[in-house]
Amino acid sequence: MKTTGYATPAGRCEIHVNAPAAGFGSLAAGRKTAVVTDTTIRRLYPRLLAGRDVVALPPGERGKTLATVEALCAKFLKLGLDRSSFVVGIGGGVVCDIAGLAASVFMRGVPFGFVPTTLLAQADAAIGGKNGVNLDRYKNVVGLFNQPRFVLVDLDFLKTLPAREFRCGAAEIIKHASIASPSLFETLEKLPGEWASLKRRDLEAVVLRSIEIKAGIIEADEKEAGERRKLNFGHTLGHALERVGRFRHGEAVSVGMAMAAAISEARGLVSGQEVGRLKRLLGRAGLPVRPPSDPGPIVEAMRKDKKRRGRDVHFVLLSGLGRAEVREIPFRDLEEHVRDLCQHR
Amino acid sequence: MKTTGYATPAGRCEIHVNAPAAGFGSLAAGRKTAVVTDTTIRRLYPRLLAGRDVVALPPGERGKTLATVEALCAKFLKLGLDRSSFVVGIGGGVVCDIAGLAASVFMRGVPFGFVPTTLLAQADAAIGGKNGVNLDRYKNVVGLFNQPRFVLVDLDFLKTLPAREFRCGAAEIIKHASIASPSLFETLEKLPGEWASLKRRDLEAVVLRSIEIKAGIIEADEKEAGERRKLNFGHTLGHALERVGRFRHGEAVSVGMAMAAAISEARGLVSGQEVGRLKRLLGRAGLPVRPPSDPGPIVEAMRKDKKRRGRDVHFVLLSGLGRAEVREIPFRDLEEHVRDLCQHR
Repeated sequence: MKTTGYATPAGRCEIHVNAPAAGFGSLAAGRKTAVVTDTTIRRLYPRLLAGRDVVALPPGERGKTLATVEALCAKFLKLGLDRSSFVVGIGGGVVCDIAGLAASVFMRGVPFGFVPTTLLAQADAAIGGKNGVNLDRYKNVVGLFNQPRFVLVDLDFLKTLPAREFRCGAAEIIKHASIASPSLFETLEKLPGEWASLKRRDLEAVVLRSIEIKAGIIEADEKEAGERRKLNFGHTLGHALERVGRFRHGEAVSVGMAMAAAISEARGLVSGQEVGRLKRLLGRAGLPVRPPSDPGPIVEAMRKDKKRRGRDVHFVLLSGLGRAEVREIPFRDLEEHVRDLCQHR
Repeated sequence: MKTTGYATPAGRCEIHVNAPAAGFGSLAAGRKTAVVTDTTIRRLYPRLLAGRDVVALPPGERGKTLATVEALCAKFLKLGLDRSSFVVGIGGGVVCDIAGLAASVFMRGVPFGFVPTTLLAQADAAIGGKNGVNLDRYKNVVGLFNQPRFVLVDLDFLKTLPAREFRCGAAEIIKHASIASPSLFETLEKLPGEWASLKRRDLEAVVLRSIEIKAGIIEADEKEAGERRKLNFGHTLGHALERVGRFRHGEAVSVGMAMAAAISEARGLVSGQEVGRLKRLLGRAGLPVRPPSDPGPIVEAMRKDKKRRGRDVHFVLLSGLGRAEVREIPFRDLEEHVRDLCQHR
């Protein structure tokens, strides 16, 4: 077990990596606690939840709405929660996003913690205090920044994680390496292709390093006014790809990173060889890297992205493997890059 | 015109008292701005809103729900707002509460300002950064703390304010005097009974003083961990009375203050003469002070109040006219006080 964390003006978030999930009760510090989870976790881990006040959501992105947040708050009222209570989200990114938002607005905010159960949530989504829900098909358009008191990462959950979900987590870890750590990038290149069969010790090290990278960025820029924008590497295009269809989040981000790397090359920031290494690393982890043939729907989806700022987009480019920079580039130029990449894929 | 304000860790809120509402555009600092208002204000003040992107809500408390917040966010998307935009709420407390919450969660938060149009919103509700909506009949159970960038108080709005609304504003001003300012209390005692006919100069002075009292408390305790609880004087019972029926917010608070003052007397903190002065001041402003005959529904509503903390309630007592203290008293004792007051009203 390893312990890390980060501090923001609002307080400190403690992170325990490779620790037993059952410890969440003592981390909630004796407060009356409601657990928010999904029906899959409730079915797979009955002992973890025994004797707890549990609200189980249907799994998946579809319930990630304000209506669900309202239903949760109504449930909290029914359970007798008040301002001195605590909320624990146990699940993947969707559960953490919803539970964090519900806790943040229930009676103007009760403290909360996360027990992420997917690799993606453990290495990325549960860290950093972005809580939110979707509006129609626009992702995370309604939400807020508010940090959890703790994140408890139990790697045992990954034993029941489907392979496709495992790959989605790998995408975000590769992202953290690509933007901030040449050494993690090299470590990942040396791992066997199939992440799901990683040794526990290697997995702990990789997840911990991924979390530390993100935690460092959050401390520097909690509300995404600068440095934190780097975490959107692969996401401007990724969110658009995800909205357009068939990709899961991590897969869409993988294609988005490959495209953003190619754009970085087109702008003379990285070499073709470096782009090749990134694509190879993603491919070996079982992730897609090829852009779709039709750029139209992606461009349309990008127009509605919440990171747009007037006519320009904050776009994350690589300036090396393990180094990123954010440029405000005209939306038109980005559109042209995308058309180009889809045509010559 | 007078200018005041307050600062919290998140930034500064500028307050302009007795200034023309038309100035809201320049206070939004050239950002793309959406105005949230209600249909009454839109009908009464077409020139103020001409050429603006306006979303007009139906007036009244019934639309104060998360569904309305979601609809507002969808509208913001449609209007092309992004993170660099600004939201201005123009209306009474309900509009400010909803607009502030919608702005706070749209794309994880855009800045906002208020142009309050009722005496209650000007002297109280628009100040302090409590934003929220109701859940079923439980008031403000879903919300958050987030401060407006500005509050622009134009006293001209009060010319079209119904007398009953005027009285509700008076209740909150009397509350501020009762908990924090013997001198404002005495000033109010010298005013003519009918507040709606106050001279502009007197009104400006009273509203400004009321705002300054609240601003000082917010600076000391933004998130209601201590000092700010004093602002709930009359509200623990007031909220319950409001839920039970027929009273408007200010009227319920007026009865709640009279009852809380009587409880303070029963506990030996103030004299019967002081309680009499408070009741007289409220009565002269046209406000009710008599508790209902049946304590049952009030007690039931109090059980669900979000300020409850286990078996105890933070209850605000007067220890003089212009001085309050917060005590954690057993819910049972409070219940007994209420039964007593309803019986001997």
